[in-house]
Amino acid sequence: MSDLKPVFVLNGPNLNLLGTREPEIYGTTTLADIEALCRQTAESLGVGLVFEQTNHEGALVELIHTAGAKGSAIVINPAAYTHTSIALLDAIKGVDAPAIEVHLSQPVAREAFRAVSYVSLAAAGTISGLGARGYELGIRAAVQLAQARAK
Amino acid sequence: MSDLKPVFVLNGPNLNLLGTREPEIYGTTTLADIEALCRQTAESLGVGLVFEQTNHEGALVELIHTAGAKGSAIVINPAAYTHTSIALLDAIKGVDAPAIEVHLSQPVAREAFRAVSYVSLAAAGTISGLGARGYELGIRAAVQLAQARAK
Amino acid sequence: MSDLKPVFVLNGPNLNLLGTREPEIYGTTTLADIEALCRQTAESLGVGLVFEQTNHEGALVELIHTAGAKGSAIVINPAAYTHTSIALLDAIKGVDAPAIEVHLSQPVAREAFRAVSYVSLAAAGTISGLGARGYELGIRAAVQLAQARAK
Amino acid sequence: MSDLKPVFVLNGPNLNLLGTREPEIYGTTTLADIEALCRQTAESLGVGLVFEQTNHEGALVELIHTAGAKGSAIVINPAAYTHTSIALLDAIKGVDAPAIEVHLSQPVAREAFRAVSYVSLAAAGTISGLGARGYELGIRAAVQLAQARAK
Amino acid sequence: MSDLKPVFVLNGPNLNLLGTREPEIYGTTTLADIEALCRQTAESLGVGLVFEQTNHEGALVELIHTAGAKGSAIVINPAAYTHTSIALLDAIKGVDAPAIEVHLSQPVAREAFRAVSYVSLAAAGTISGLGARGYELGIRAAVQLAQARAK
Amino acid sequence: MSDLKPVFVLNGPNLNLLGTREPEIYGTTTLADIEALCRQTAESLGVGLVFEQTNHEGALVELIHTAGAKGSAIVINPAAYTHTSIALLDAIKGVDAPAIEVHLSQPVAREAFRAVSYVSLAAAGTISGLGARGYELGIRAAVQLAQARAK
Amino acid sequence: MSDLKPVFVLNGPNLNLLGTREPEIYGTTTLADIEALCRQTAESLGVGLVFEQTNHEGALVELIHTAGAKGSAIVINPAAYTHTSIALLDAIKGVDAPAIEVHLSQPVAREAFRAVSYVSLAAAGTISGLGARGYELGIRAAVQLAQARAK
Amino acid sequence: MSDLKPVFVLNGPNLNLLGTREPEIYGTTTLADIEALCRQTAESLGVGLVFEQTNHEGALVELIHTAGAKGSAIVINPAAYTHTSIALLDAIKGVDAPAIEVHLSQPVAREAFRAVSYVSLAAAGTISGLGARGYELGIRAAVQLAQARAK
Amino acid sequence: MSDLKPVFVLNGPNLNLLGTREPEIYGTTTLADIEALCRQTAESLGVGLVFEQTNHEGALVELIHTAGAKGSAIVINPAAYTHTSIALLDAIKGVDAPAIEVHLSQPVAREAFRAVSYVSLAAAGTISGLGARGYELGIRAAVQLAQARAK
Amino acid sequence: MSDLKPVFVLNGPNLNLLGTREPEIYGTTTLADIEALCRQTAESLGVGLVFEQTNHEGALVELIHTAGAKGSAIVINPAAYTHTSIALLDAIKGVDAPAIEVHLSQPVAREAFRAVSYVSLAAAGTISGLGARGYELGIRAAVQLAQARAK
Amino acid sequence: MSDLKPVFVLNGPNLNLLGTREPEIYGTTTLADIEALCRQTAESLGVGLVFEQTNHEGALVELIHTAGAKGSAIVINPAAYTHTSIALLDAIKGVDAPAIEVHLSQPVAREAFRAVSYVSLAAAGTISGLGARGYELGIRAAVQLAQARAK
Amino acid sequence: MSDLKPVFVLNGPNLNLLGTREPEIYGTTTLADIEALCRQTAESLGVGLVFEQTNHEGALVELIHTAGAKGSAIVINPAAYTHTSIALLDAIKGVDAPAIEVHLSQPVAREAFRAVSYVSLAAAGTISGLGARGYELGIRAAVQLAQARAK
Repeated sequence: MSDLKPVFVLNGPNLNLLGTREPEIYGTTTLADIEALCRQTAESLGVGLVFEQTNHEGALVELIHTAGAKGSAIVINPAAYTHTSIALLDAIKGVDAPAIEVHLSQPVAREAFRAVSYVSLAAAGTISGLGARGYELGIRAAVQLAQARAK
Repeated sequence: MSDLKPVFVLNGPNLNLLGTREPEIYGTTTLADIEALCRQTAESLGVGLVFEQTNHEGALVELIHTAGAKGSAIVINPAAYTHTSIALLDAIKGVDAPAIEVHLSQPVAREAFRAVSYVSLAAAGTISGLGARGYELGIRAAVQLAQARAK
Repeated sequence: MSDLKPVFVLNGPNLNLLGTREPEIYGTTTLADIEALCRQTAESLGVGLVFEQTNHEGALVELIHTAGAKGSAIVINPAAYTHTSIALLDAIKGVDAPAIEVHLSQPVAREAFRAVSYVSLAAAGTISGLGARGYELGIRAAVQLAQARAK
Repeated sequence: MSDLKPVFVLNGPNLNLLGTREPEIYGTTTLADIEALCRQTAESLGVGLVFEQTNHEGALVELIHTAGAKGSAIVINPAAYTHTSIALLDAIKGVDAPAIEVHLSQPVAREAFRAVSYVSLAAAGTISGLGARGYELGIRAAVQLAQARAK
Repeated sequence: MSDLKPVFVLNGPNLNLLGTREPEIYGTTTLADIEALCRQTAESLGVGLVFEQTNHEGALVELIHTAGAKGSAIVINPAAYTHTSIALLDAIKGVDAPAIEVHLSQPVAREAFRAVSYVSLAAAGTISGLGARGYELGIRAAVQLAQARAK
Repeated sequence: MSDLKPVFVLNGPNLNLLGTREPEIYGTTTLADIEALCRQTAESLGVGLVFEQTNHEGALVELIHTAGAKGSAIVINPAAYTHTSIALLDAIKGVDAPAIEVHLSQPVAREAFRAVSYVSLAAAGTISGLGARGYELGIRAAVQLAQARAK
Repeated sequence: MSDLKPVFVLNGPNLNLLGTREPEIYGTTTLADIEALCRQTAESLGVGLVFEQTNHEGALVELIHTAGAKGSAIVINPAAYTHTSIALLDAIKGVDAPAIEVHLSQPVAREAFRAVSYVSLAAAGTISGLGARGYELGIRAAVQLAQARAK
Repeated sequence: MSDLKPVFVLNGPNLNLLGTREPEIYGTTTLADIEALCRQTAESLGVGLVFEQTNHEGALVELIHTAGAKGSAIVINPAAYTHTSIALLDAIKGVDAPAIEVHLSQPVAREAFRAVSYVSLAAAGTISGLGARGYELGIRAAVQLAQARAK
Repeated sequence: MSDLKPVFVLNGPNLNLLGTREPEIYGTTTLADIEALCRQTAESLGVGLVFEQTNHEGALVELIHTAGAKGSAIVINPAAYTHTSIALLDAIKGVDAPAIEVHLSQPVAREAFRAVSYVSLAAAGTISGLGARGYELGIRAAVQLAQARAK
Repeated sequence: MSDLKPVFVLNGPNLNLLGTREPEIYGTTTLADIEALCRQTAESLGVGLVFEQTNHEGALVELIHTAGAKGSAIVINPAAYTHTSIALLDAIKGVDAPAIEVHLSQPVAREAFRAVSYVSLAAAGTISGLGARGYELGIRAAVQLAQARAK
Repeated sequence: MSDLKPVFVLNGPNLNLLGTREPEIYGTTTLADIEALCRQTAESLGVGLVFEQTNHEGALVELIHTAGAKGSAIVINPAAYTHTSIALLDAIKGVDAPAIEVHLSQPVAREAFRAVSYVSLAAAGTISGLGARGYELGIRAAVQLAQARAK
Repeated sequence: MSDLKPVFVLNGPNLNLLGTREPEIYGTTTLADIEALCRQTAESLGVGLVFEQTNHEGALVELIHTAGAKGSAIVINPAAYTHTSIALLDAIKGVDAPAIEVHLSQPVAREAFRAVSYVSLAAAGTISGLGARGYELGIRAAVQLAQARAK
């Protein structure tokens, strides 16, 4: 087992509906499927995993604070808050853990108001359009960043 | 009594202040008055009614989820979140119940930032400017849409 | 029979094509169907009804003037002129009858240039997205506003 | 009597309502009052006067054409069409008579969409904010321009 | 003679002034010259021709409706209404005949407000900058489209 | 002689160059010619005249203050400051004398940055495009407004 | 002790991180330091103090409601919600207590998206750029406004 | 055979993929089909034809230079460079041969970034939306322009 | 008496009209009242005070230069120049004294063009909306900043 | 060895300078280092690799065409062309191979003109901010997409 | 000595602070150093030199007028007024002497509001980014232009 | 002869047409004339000169790379690519040689799309509007910058 503190995978509003919500955009994978994939990835990398979903912007802010205190890195799919929340941007800037932003779809290829990402302004990296697979890549990248820091 | 599941009437931030807040815009009707009017309308149509108010965007998202699971239709006055919440848009798109958006005043005739409605992009219909009466019309429209689906 | 002067239901450009024009957006209901629904609604409310359609902006302006002189209230579907006619806005402001704006579809969920409504800046209320049903609700709202004024 | 062909004073949509429409902006002067003032001014200058009002953009275009053929100059209050009609701009550019644009109020000090004037792009001069008095000054300016050309 | 119903060539505001209006932009060809050219083209193709000009947006809308009912295709020079009329867009979308948009000059190379064309959003094709010759090409294209449909 | 306090005619930057500067736009009339025309107009109306030109925004602000204290009305050609000076707007709003804005040319028909007028937001009326003649009409309008107030 | 109800000092998202978060912008003062300074200021002015921090927009809305009911005035640092929350604007407008907006830094001198403040549209006054000292000045101003009202 | 120098038909990036690329927009016609149609048209008009395709903006610039030196007219489908290349605009302006711009589809009816055409600012005419047929019409128009010049 | 060099309180255009100008926005306090309040505040803090008003942008620039040379800090109400003067921004950046920006009203809650402040980009802090009281708070903040520097 | 055709890794302008160019943004890794990492990744996945760099937009378009014909998937770092090239967008849409867009840095966190990505509108996925590591993740994602298609 | 009238070198607001103001942008060269360099350059070219600095926009306007009357050419560093003064643009257009605009730094590479230059719209040439050296090059260019005119 | 490596003078698209292309804007000087002037200037300064023109953006990028490796400084007239090429910006930033941007005309005084210069964001200096003379001044400035570095 790695010495790294766990990776926090944080999910924003409406992602609890995954699998039923707009399947033509998001597919039929559920959030439980994604959690399983994430756990499997973390395990293979020898790091712990905290997996959370919330529909509340303020709760997401606080999960980032917690991740900053108790985690080594953050993988975050901020969903709709990506485009409207400066509070998330400030939260990520305010903690010491590197954050990887993940989107299941390509937001910029959808409505114009999804082309703005406040989170990208603070995230170390962004992965979009690759579905659940993006979480796996995101965890790999997050762990690598955390390990580089730990040196 | 209709076989329809109840209609959810959801109210957004600051609507608990109705009757005292900016009466030159919103009048002296209170939210309790509106709830009474809604209950009376629902009863006359033979459907149940769930009536909620919250100041939290995330709670409103979750009430929409609940309405999608346990209700037949949604009547929603998103108040200030109308203009800033993509999460509400995604929530309404993510559930199977038709939604009617209601505003007491005419938002587009006020400040420029009230001219945008993310909720309208997902709502089946919108009724604005008609005060508490808009809720009554909204419930009538919602029930009709729900009945049409139920066939 | 009510003492109210008749309600004027005014229809803008291309609505004479209803039922054949872009049925995937507007459905197969014809304007004659809508007129029948409106007459039935007016009758049930005990008010007279004037029902007109014109493709001319200037004619629509003059119908509003006539409605202001001879009617108690206006229900108007300005169609394409909604988004381009300041003359309609001025006409509605210039007469004493309350006006309800009705749209069959949700204009804001279509092309960006349909997101502007000059008519909403003067209309007492707006109902959109509810198809022909919106006319019925619009007449009900218009009559109620007219009755409140008549007191 | 001057040798000049008559001056055409053309009035756009809703100006037939003057005196009753939004008196807090436009005052209580009626269009008939303005016509009387215009006739008196023309008479004092020894020129004929044609005074017209129409709510139709196309009719206003044609009145400009007529004025170009049978008049010496144009005084035009295009009202709401000021801000939306490129056809009026093209009509004024297309005739040989100089045009003076008149507005009763200061459009730029009202809603933002009244800050654009297509007519100003073709008019020889513009007079705004001076109420009915603007027509008188406009006729004086128009006659002077016509006389200068006639030389 | 072809079995095709006639082609409708429709001309918008101020085009009756052609030959006198702004000759540095539009040249000295008159609308009668264009009509003659169009009749000659139609005759050579063996189709009937209806040729109309109007300064009224609403009349143009109705001519499109008529063309949809009695014609096989539309060639339209909407002139100034190109840039301001959503009603024309809706009319063309609302009828079954293909429409070719023609402009004598290159609108986009003139004032910025001529860069928008609502008509292009519905027209099957657009030809601009080629003077009266554009009508001839437009009729050829329109007939070809109509023939392809008739098969 | 009228009882009115004098009218202040105020001229902004570069107007001292009139007659030599860009004659294709401004003609060959000099500022002295305009002053003579203004004096003649004032005399014919029986009011005094103060005529000033300055290239300094602050001096123009102070001339407006003086006019508010010692004059009955203001006729102002703010030239380039029209488009950039909120201080002039505040000055005109801050004094009790009505102000008429005059421009020799049609600013809106020139560069885009001349389409904004801060002064119009405070001026009682605006006259543009009429050359030196605009000053004469402006004085007539200003005197009339002052007389109406004096009653 | 003053008769005034207590002043509410409300703090928005991420302010709990103060002292650790982006110290090059916000310095090393903690929120506890600010609370101490506020308590000392309130005590010196003889008024009670309620001091709260939350990361939830909805909770901030409700704290404003509470302050309106139980407090004499509000000092609020809305942090990131300053720029995105119309709900806060409506809340402040909806209660009877005057509000002073405080920012530790100068938001307009940072990213463009921090130049908008919905809260300023409702706040009686704004103090920015003065660090923790801004809270002290804010409380002084708030108490003075409350005392002026109490008279 | 005409005395005219040949017409250059120039094709921009990705047009080599025609027939396979996005057939729902561009159809199944290949560039070889278009070349055949162009050769047939040129032959019927008695002029030579140079037909080129390149994916390089600079090569397209140089082909225009060559066409200016060795050709009588240009027919150009600049494809994606239509919307981004000021170099093409300058090239067309810099040579003496008239240019006709051709687009297979209606670019303005697609994504917003396709609504700008730098090429239209220099092209004598534009033909869009008519598929391969647009090339034929374009060659006819180009030859006519060249012949008119040659006189 | 403090060792600090005096605080410069600088006032921009039209502030000499205070008390008479737009009292519904600015109240009836005169600039002399404000000067008295400032002197009293400075005296209580044991620092000298230089108090100036000018309507000239250039003079304001030079007063800032002087303040930089002879003063310890600047309190500036730039009035209308706030929104248009980059020269003031450069002046404040160019001197070594900290500057506090003061506005009597809330500029952002007025016309849109008052939402920009070039001065805020250089000022250490900004206080708005608190009337004359803002000057007092501004002097307190300025002195504190100057004392912190002096250490 | 997999049956998949090779993955094409394509690099845009200035990437040949990597390691020397703006190391504070891009680090000291050279393009040769990245190629080595890519080859190692491809080998571990059992697929072939084509690795190219070009400074020419047209050459990049053609490499995409080649990749569509001879490769199974594309990993592309379009560098500066990301933000200006619609031709790249069309090229990716025009070929049948899935494309993954990779950026070494976070473009949206740099200058505003780097916030637009035409390539994202066609790419299956985007990975940014992760340095050379982004290429490795991009190849993994590309291979997985290609394998899914191959089934 | 040349027969040319002297060259006027005019300097705008805050340039008197050069050498102390923001040395990281403007360096340590003082305005006296620049004047010396300019005198030396003029002497070597055999022309007289007038060198002025003012913080007043109006004074700069008048210096341009004087230069037009008494000088052969103008070299102007308008500093902050570059971006806000239409009066300077009009002044330069209004005089007969050619003007060269000089900036010490690259304004477009700084804040967005420095990207606009009204002065460039009238200046014969612009030199930026070259520090004091730009004045020398500017004088050389100005003299050459003046000599070319004098022929 | 100086020890400096040669100066690279690089010319962008369409500059090979100089002397024939739009002479009303660019004059009759040819690129060969400019090259001769440049060689003469370089010789007089004792430095070598490489003079290139290309119509290809990618080739210009590579010429900059070469200049960075083998030259001491760059003088570049990017012509149309000035306004559209971020690749040029990145190339200049990516090499170690100082670059001077030269334009024959004043781009900002022409079409709006020529007001943007990506190259200015990286160039040490810019000289525009001075025709071929700008190249001479550009070489002088470039050599001086190179010499200053060489020390």
